[in-house]
Amino acid sequence: MNLVINTLDKMNITTLLDLINDRIGSLRMKDTPANLYDPIRYMLSMGGKRMRPLLTLMSYSLFKENVVSFIDPAIGLEVFHNFTLIHDDIMDNAPLRRGQSTVHKKWGGETAILSGDVMMIQAYQLVLTSKHNLELILRSFNTCALHVCEGQQMDIDFEKSNDVEIDDYLEMIRLKTAALLGFCMELGAQGAGASTKDISLAKSFGADLGIAFQLQDDMLDVFGESKKVGKQVGGDILSDKKTYLWIKAFELSDTEQRKKLNSLLNNPEINGPQKIDMVKSIYEDVGVLKYVQKEIKLHFAKAADALDKINGSKDAKDMIRSFYLQLIKRDQ
Amino acid sequence: MNLVINTLDKMNITTLLDLINDRIGSLRMKDTPANLYDPIRYMLSMGGKRMRPLLTLMSYSLFKENVVSFIDPAIGLEVFHNFTLIHDDIMDNAPLRRGQSTVHKKWGGETAILSGDVMMIQAYQLVLTSKHNLELILRSFNTCALHVCEGQQMDIDFEKSNDVEIDDYLEMIRLKTAALLGFCMELGAQGAGASTKDISLAKSFGADLGIAFQLQDDMLDVFGESKKVGKQVGGDILSDKKTYLWIKAFELSDTEQRKKLNSLLNNPEINGPQKIDMVKSIYEDVGVLKYVQKEIKLHFAKAADALDKINGSKDAKDMIRSFYLQLIKRDQ
Repeated sequence: MNLVINTLDKMNITTLLDLINDRIGSLRMKDTPANLYDPIRYMLSMGGKRMRPLLTLMSYSLFKENVVSFIDPAIGLEVFHNFTLIHDDIMDNAPLRRGQSTVHKKWGGETAILSGDVMMIQAYQLVLTSKHNLELILRSFNTCALHVCEGQQMDIDFEKSNDVEIDDYLEMIRLKTAALLGFCMELGAQGAGASTKDISLAKSFGADLGIAFQLQDDMLDVFGESKKVGKQVGGDILSDKKTYLWIKAFELSDTEQRKKLNSLLNNPEINGPQKIDMVKSIYEDVGVLKYVQKEIKLHFAKAADALDKINGSKDAKDMIRSFYLQLIKRDQ
Repeated sequence: MNLVINTLDKMNITTLLDLINDRIGSLRMKDTPANLYDPIRYMLSMGGKRMRPLLTLMSYSLFKENVVSFIDPAIGLEVFHNFTLIHDDIMDNAPLRRGQSTVHKKWGGETAILSGDVMMIQAYQLVLTSKHNLELILRSFNTCALHVCEGQQMDIDFEKSNDVEIDDYLEMIRLKTAALLGFCMELGAQGAGASTKDISLAKSFGADLGIAFQLQDDMLDVFGESKKVGKQVGGDILSDKKTYLWIKAFELSDTEQRKKLNSLLNNPEINGPQKIDMVKSIYEDVGVLKYVQKEIKLHFAKAADALDKINGSKDAKDMIRSFYLQLIKRDQ
């Protein structure tokens, strides 16, 4: 390990992010086959919120100070997350990610599949550097990784189903998104040798944050600004995703509106901005926004509650709270 | 773990294969999402030679007797192998595998990507049950898994390149195929607590066997019988794969034959049986068969040499030798 930063003079979100980006930039990556490793370098250099390693390190810091020693397992979860993004983008046929071409658009599907596979292996390599509770950590990582795949399969299945309820949807995002954020917190706590109770609270915090975060994402996909969000606005509508918004709006719709929503699904004749506008106007007419906002608030509150109960460093808790407040207000 | 077989009365290839198939049949697999787990069950129930777990258990038996206790890590490598097959079949757009529809043809590319991802995670879960040298084993597994992906990328790259030499090809199959067979032997030896020297010899045996095996596969792809081989004969020719046969035949060709071989690459106008016949007749005219047979023999001999040097059970060595002799004679 060749770290530029060995210790942090001051621990806050900015210094942790510097540490994370520094370490990602210094990850050794082979030169050949270039077609395999170039997409990985490209994907990791795109930036992003680095939310997963940040949560891992913040969780670690609740129980132990030397977060720098845990940077590699933390980075492992960023690499894992990016593996899922590469494969999801193929499945969703998404053209843009963080404002740039997706890997499969730039290098083709074959390479995108394979680069994603490599990133999953690299994620294991990095998580494997955890010194504490290695076997337990790897077992939890495996379970989490399976949940992420199961959630993604449910997501795909939902696109073709006309019978998705709010609870199905919440279960899907619990698996697809929240499981990993929960595991980030769990990994940090496990790695720092926290008590079983605190590990479980940390995991709950991450999981509820994850659900709130995903619901925000769904909301921003429709009501956000393309430039800020960094991907195509309305992408979920175009790919007939049954998001919280869609399901709730359908629930709230009258017969006429339901007919319209159904007629727009898998309809090759109406597409692009026209389809987005039509669906969005129903969302607005039935007032779906206030429902999703209420659900987001609920999960943020549950997360805050779990955090309060953790027996950990006060400074670290304050840092996590400020991170959490940033998330609540985010518009991208 | 719920094993039907707890001990083996008599250890031979047949009883080991029964143990392997029995354990694969009893692997717990979730029911939902069905679209995710059905393809995995389908893939694992297709059969196949079970060469990877067989090598792992045979290697283990060189140094320790209770092979049953090591069945799960061994199965892990069969699951890993099947993950690579699912993803490779998408990339090669292969219609058949072991005489049946490939996963992506039956369930679509999205599910095939995701089911493959799940199988990679399951492979880690199973390898994680190794009791001995866990960290070392996982490190070697990671390295091996990366090699397999690198080999597959080289394979893809070669299809579009007109500048592939025999050495490049041998390096590609060393990574794509031989690395895993080498790791099977390494895993068994590591798990049984063999000496560093014996682990290294076991690994060499597996790797050379792997190269010989892959060269046989290339040969059978062109000169085998479709019914026996269980996949489309000539598939490598149709997808412009630069196999040992193609590269060597090109090397041996005169100007006219080279022109013909080149004109058939990436040529959408000539395809199907016509293309296969044209390439095959050049292979026959230049007599490429005796070159590939010589190379196969060389690697089988190197493998035998490594096996001889291993300090392990005589009975186990005899069993491995008989397995190896079966492979030499195979026509499928």
